[in-house]
Parts: sequence; C-alpha cells; structure tokens
Amino acid sequence: MRFTKMHGLGNDFILIYRNTEPPDSESSRLAMQMCDRHTGVGADGLVWVYPSDHADIAMRIINADGTVADQCGNAVRCVAKYYYERISAKKEAITIETKRGIQMVWNRVDQGEVSQVCVDMDEPILNPAQIPINVTADKVVNQKVQTEGKTFHFTGVSMGNPHVVIEVEDAVSFPVETWGPLLENHELFPRKANVEFITIHSPGEITMRVWERGVGQTMACGSGACAVVVAGVLRGKCSRQATVHLKGGDLHIDWNADDNHVYMTGPATFVFEGKWDES
Amino acid sequence: MRFTKMHGLGNDFILIYRNTEPPDSESSRLAMQMCDRHTGVGADGLVWVYPSDHADIAMRIINADGTVADQCGNAVRCVAKYYYERISAKKEAITIETKRGIQMVWNRVDQGEVSQVCVDMDEPILNPAQIPINVTADKVVNQKVQTEGKTFHFTGVSMGNPHVVIEVEDAVSFPVETWGPLLENHELFPRKANVEFITIHSPGEITMRVWERGVGQTMACGSGACAVVVAGVLRGKCSRQATVHLKGGDLHIDWNADDNHVYMTGPATFVFEGKWDES
Repeated sequence: MRFTKMHGLGNDFILIYRNTEPPDSESSRLAMQMCDRHTGVGADGLVWVYPSDHADIAMRIINADGTVADQCGNAVRCVAKYYYERISAKKEAITIETKRGIQMVWNRVDQGEVSQVCVDMDEPILNPAQIPINVTADKVVNQKVQTEGKTFHFTGVSMGNPHVVIEVEDAVSFPVETWGPLLENHELFPRKANVEFITIHSPGEITMRVWERGVGQTMACGSGACAVVVAGVLRGKCSRQATVHLKGGDLHIDWNADDNHVYMTGPATFVFEGKWDES
Repeated sequence: MRFTKMHGLGNDFILIYRNTEPPDSESSRLAMQMCDRHTGVGADGLVWVYPSDHADIAMRIINADGTVADQCGNAVRCVAKYYYERISAKKEAITIETKRGIQMVWNRVDQGEVSQVCVDMDEPILNPAQIPINVTADKVVNQKVQTEGKTFHFTGVSMGNPHVVIEVEDAVSFPVETWGPLLENHELFPRKANVEFITIHSPGEITMRVWERGVGQTMACGSGACAVVVAGVLRGKCSRQATVHLKGGDLHIDWNADDNHVYMTGPATFVFEGKWDES
C-alpha cells in the first residue's frame, strides 16, 4: 500500500489514496499501527483521501490514537496540495468533503507547485452553550478561570472544536505543559478544550503556543490560530487580518467582515513517499 | 533516494544502501533532517550500509542529533536481516564492518526470513579506568553512588560504551526519567554513562529499563542488556545465559565462559520502504 507523508507546519500526516470510502472498522487499527514512530511510519494522524460525489475530493482523518478527528486545518492544507500536485485537474479552487461538511480551499501556485493554501474555516461559534463552555452569557470574552490557585483570563471560541485563548506575558517561555492539561480538563469546559497561550506583539502579529485536547503540546493548530485572531478581535486588541507565529511556522488569518468566515492561509509540505505492507 | 525503515525492539533506524563509503560531511545534516519525526521520516538513527573490503558488508550509524554512533546492537541486527533478505548471498553467518571493528553475526532463518539475529558483542570491559569510572579497583561491583541524597549500588561494565547497572525493587514502575539523568551525569562517570535499572526475577530472567547517554529513556539498548547480564554474573545473581525483558521486547544474552565474549540474540523487523527526495 503506497502512502505519502506530508506536514503542515510540523503537524504530520500519512496520506493514503483509495478508490472508495474507507471503512471505519479497519481505519482505527491501521492508524494506530502506522502512526507509531518506533514500529510504524510515525505521524499525528492517518488521512484517507478518496473520491467524493459532492466535492472534488473527500478526506477523513484518523488520529494516532485511532479516534476519528472532527477537523484539522493543517491536514486540509496537505490534502489540497496533494490533490493539486498528485491527483488531478490543476484546479486552484478545490472543494473538499470532510466529516464536518464541504470545505472550500484555494491553492496559491508558484511554478507548478502549491506554495500556500487558503482554507475557508467557516464562521466562528461564540455562543458558550455551543462551544461548549459552562458560562451563561452571549459571548465569553476575558472571563476568569481559576486552577491550582492561579487565575487566568480567557476568551472562548469554537471553530468546530472548542478553544480557550489566554494572553500571557511571553508565550514562548510559558509553561504550556503545566497549565495546558489543567485548563483542558477544567470543569468550565464540559467537552474539554484546546488551550492557546498567546502574546500580542501588535494588532497584526501574535505568537501562540497550543495545548491540544487529547494530544498535548503540538507545533501547530490551524483552528487554534483562527480562534486566536477571533478572540483578539473580540477583545479589541487585534485586527481582522493577522499573522500568527506558531512553533512550526506562520499562519495568516483573515476573519472576513463581509461573510463572517475565517480564512486561514499557510504552507503544506511533502516529506516522502512510502510503501507499507499490511500485516 | 530509496530507504528502508527497520526496528530492533522499537529502536528504529533508516537504512540506506550506497555503493561507496558515505562521506561524514553530508551524513550529519541528512541524519538530522531525516530522523525528525514531524518534518522528516523519524528514527533514532540513520544507518549507511555499503560494501566493505574487509567484511561481507559495512555499516555506519549516525544518531538523530547528527553525531556518529560507536556501537548499537539493535542496528547491527537490522543490518544483518537487511543484508540477508535484501542484498545478497543468503549467508547465515555474516561479518559486518562497523566503526568499532568487524562484528560476527548469525542469522536464524525460518522459511526464508530472518527471525532472530545473534550478534557477537565482544568481551566486556571491567577495568574502571577503561569503562571509564572514577574508582580505584579491579572491578566495580555493587559500589555506592549518591545523588540528591539517595544512595544506589551499581556495577560498572563497558561493552564499548559505559554502562552502570543498578538493581531496583520494580524496574517497570521505577522513575527512570528522574534518576537516569542524575546518574548519567554523575562525577563518577567522566564520559557519562548509560544507566540500566533492573529487577532480577530468577538467575535466567531479568527486567530492565534503560536511560541512554545523550538520548534519554529508550525502548531497548542491546549493549545495555549485555552489560546487565555481565553485572548479574559478577554479583553471583544471574546465570551466564539469561533472557532480558526490555520495553520493546526480549533479548537473549549469553556470556560465553570459553571465549569471554557476550552473544546477544534478538529480532529485527522491517517497517516500510520509502523514497526521499533530497533538498
């Protein structure tokens, strides 16, 4: 079975093309096996890419732990580049069927290669009941949360998955490993939360570190970068177009005032091609 | 450039065959690039396999950090299986040229496939000046070492690299991450040390956890398993033939009374084939 290893800002995936929709039953076992670094290929997730009746292409992400992922901006960018360069059509605007629905994606092409991918990440969800956050209000902006005797101020945003954005003095040196898991599992967040620790350098420039729900600290989280800019705008501290510096590189976020959608632009990278014999 | 990913008890390597001796200059950069899990292939090391004038085949191991490795029993087993199944000759007894000299290896073959590999790991070095350990004695058996107010008893053995073997009540639950680095860097060990925490179940059965010098906790260390049995024999607690249970699986060790050599037998596993485009 042939596969392609790709990454989006260090968030790495094993892409496998197949002609039919993948069966969930075998996907979980295969993802766990292949995503193991020592005895498998090693990756954050396995991404099935297959034909769609409703879009240019369909994708499904299985996390390294075998669970099905809702949404992952970094993986969508990888699939967009993979589709453009390896499968077909040379279309710069592509529709991708995901578990969450049809996603619009635009490839920026330089000399036949996709250098950047812009993904329509849809509208942010600000209603706390829908994020979900156990707070009674219209929005959750700069709310207090306490854990282990320390008080943080957070803004809550869902991009299809729950995000908690917290401004800190220096995101780079902040002990994400200490506070991330405590906040992820805080009683305020009934479905847990992804936690972004950010430093705002200027309205258009933010540095972020992320603690991902069920995963831990990662190099990049696309939906998290979107949530960070939305939270910054809600607090009046960021402009709608901003660059977010993540450990793995930069994402450019645009929270469009006209359609209320968040657009995320960033790179996707081919790493290598492989052949895996199923056992 | 084609490569093969293999592992020996979870200690994983990228094997690349080339027709000539690899240049050290480019090896370091390539190993660092390819061994990165997120943006490369991901492995503990890169192993060059190339023709030898003095043995059946030659190998050189470059660690993930770009440094050249002295010796690695797990990698030698992988090269033996790779040679037998992918390169040539179907010889069961093979000589491999390593940085340390010529290593004798025997493949145990079942139905055309190598199921186990036995490696001659040479004689153990017990003289503290040569290990090196800052102790004046003939051997270092059950010596005290103190760190952070805690006292351990260790036995020192070199298998070409320095090992410090410490018996603990339960190796599986022992906090290797806490005490490993403190002992690795203790002033008694001028070139640092690999530290093995062991529990002896019977003279022929030992469980071990290992903290590798410059690496951290790993799933398996072949030379460490050899050192563990040598230390057990020196202390009168183990037989010369013993099975060592490591996190990644079992190794069978035989410290031969006739030639004083230590023989290590264990598995090697193909994971996948890949193609890497150099950038």
